[in-house]
Amino acid sequence: MTRSKAYFPPLDFARGRIEIGHGSGGRATAQLIEELFGAAFDNEWLRRMNDQAAFEPPSGRLVLTTDGFVVSPLFFPGGDIGSLAVHGTINDIAMGGARPLYLSASFIIEEGFLLADLQRIVRSMAAAAGGAAVPIVTGDTKVVERGKGDGVFITTTGVGLVTPGVDISADRARPGDKIIVSGPIGDHGIAVLSRREHLSFETEVQSDSAPLHELVAAMIAAAPDVRCLRDPTRGGIAALLNELAQQSHVGMFIRERDIPVRPAVVAACEFLGLDPLYIANEGKLVAVCPSESAAAALAALRNHPLGRDAAMIGEVREDSHCFVEMETDFGGRRLVDWLSSDPLPRIC
Amino acid sequence: MTRSKAYFPPLDFARGRIEIGHGSGGRATAQLIEELFGAAFDNEWLRRMNDQAAFEPPSGRLVLTTDGFVVSPLFFPGGDIGSLAVHGTINDIAMGGARPLYLSASFIIEEGFLLADLQRIVRSMAAAAGGAAVPIVTGDTKVVERGKGDGVFITTTGVGLVTPGVDISADRARPGDKIIVSGPIGDHGIAVLSRREHLSFETEVQSDSAPLHELVAAMIAAAPDVRCLRDPTRGGIAALLNELAQQSHVGMFIRERDIPVRPAVVAACEFLGLDPLYIANEGKLVAVCPSESAAAALAALRNHPLGRDAAMIGEVREDSHCFVEMETDFGGRRLVDWLSSDPLPRIC
Repeated sequence: MTRSKAYFPPLDFARGRIEIGHGSGGRATAQLIEELFGAAFDNEWLRRMNDQAAFEPPSGRLVLTTDGFVVSPLFFPGGDIGSLAVHGTINDIAMGGARPLYLSASFIIEEGFLLADLQRIVRSMAAAAGGAAVPIVTGDTKVVERGKGDGVFITTTGVGLVTPGVDISADRARPGDKIIVSGPIGDHGIAVLSRREHLSFETEVQSDSAPLHELVAAMIAAAPDVRCLRDPTRGGIAALLNELAQQSHVGMFIRERDIPVRPAVVAACEFLGLDPLYIANEGKLVAVCPSESAAAALAALRNHPLGRDAAMIGEVREDSHCFVEMETDFGGRRLVDWLSSDPLPRIC
Repeated sequence: MTRSKAYFPPLDFARGRIEIGHGSGGRATAQLIEELFGAAFDNEWLRRMNDQAAFEPPSGRLVLTTDGFVVSPLFFPGGDIGSLAVHGTINDIAMGGARPLYLSASFIIEEGFLLADLQRIVRSMAAAAGGAAVPIVTGDTKVVERGKGDGVFITTTGVGLVTPGVDISADRARPGDKIIVSGPIGDHGIAVLSRREHLSFETEVQSDSAPLHELVAAMIAAAPDVRCLRDPTRGGIAALLNELAQQSHVGMFIRERDIPVRPAVVAACEFLGLDPLYIANEGKLVAVCPSESAAAALAALRNHPLGRDAAMIGEVREDSHCFVEMETDFGGRRLVDWLSSDPLPRIC
């Protein structure tokens, strides 16, 4: 697409803003796609400039997943909405025991949004997709009037290939299975919250936003009979364990002392009156494994940089109420219930 | 998912509103998914309640496409954002010469949005997906604070299977090829605009929103050498023809008298100072065919209810400037340029 260059000066990424016309489907849209998205995401599919991307999938079962990202603020310690949108969807694919193949990205942008910020986000997406070796092959851009959006919302959708022989699903947890978490919890939520509320803690907490597909592949290679796999995003590990308990019709029992949490996150949670169990993560997974393969799964996680602080935190129990129970640091027990309201909206 | 019922009264679809907690990932989210999305979209994939849906694709090349929908108003004559989001993505798949297999749907909802309106939209999506026999297999829901969105935005993504032997792409138009449109243009844009501006015309114009995959399949069966296929959404057939011209490095020549437009759309456009060539359609296609198969393609279109007013409107020419030129009703000629600004924002 070279025509727009002959008519328009190049986009002014230093001072320019998104205008309604950038969503028109006309020349301004073509220019935005060419000079921003095409330049950053460049690959053979986007270069054909069709409204869809075709690919020859390896044979096997495919997975499809989609996630909308509305995080506020758009930039936070350890990441931004762009890297988050890539990692989040890669992780949803990985949690199906699948290898991510292709991503699509849909942008809903507010009129007046700074082109410099959009470029920073798009480049961050391109770096995240490149780092994970998963191309963004198709996309869409819409613009809404000032005051009808909030900067930018991004929906990413991913297609992945299921590793043969793997059957991972939230309804497969069985009494006696072990519960493993791949590292310290709560980093992402606290990182976003600290920036949103302009809080500064002694140690800055960085988001754990990261693509987990290679960590999952390593774990599955060591323990192919993993039963459930999920990433504790919104609602934290509390929501995740309640979902698994309910879908598998079992109870979950965890031990507080075994759950890894960074001291800075503990301090921030105490200061803010929050519970790390409910805080979102974007680079962690929870796995449920048969007890005989749990040690192998844990060792494989610990052997990977993204899982070196993995820990076994409890086990699955028979329980017709599907309760999640925790043995506290003080030796007591408490129910880990779902939250019905949201203490941390727009965390992802 | 039965647990939420034990804790919460059912959602009040008559008077209830979306709350921030519906996006929390906790029990309120689970309840919304169960009582609204699960009930409307019900299928084997959603029932497993995983964050991704797995499927066994038929062998062949797949296409992936995504589209964000921000239409305002959400309800308009002939459709709503829900049916539009299903039809739009099915059509992007169909325009790749592919058969749609699966859809995903991501919702970004503004706090305070009426549950009754959300239910109406979701049921309309379910009806559209059911009517087209393309299941919505996975989804996501986010809630943003009041004033940070505009009711609801929906991003749908689709996976489709390319019909073997078909090679359709925007860069394949060649001098001598014929240009066909599948029916009268401008209906969708005028339908949305009339509702938005509270205009009433003598004849109410209905959106043409419709799934075109069967129409495309019929045309490809009759003319498998179709070169380019695209639906004239944002920017209308003017933007579409300019895109094809640019991507194929050719010129386009069309005749105004051969382009079908309903009298009510002509009247509305005259009243509003708009040109039907630039108005969005959501149930029309433009095809470029080699001249030897154009008659067969046209006959196949006319033989289908969604293409009965199809017309041959012009041909592809050699032109190093990649111009789109039109012979007007009065026998003159004018350049059909892209619009650089958007006369009709948020039309899809």
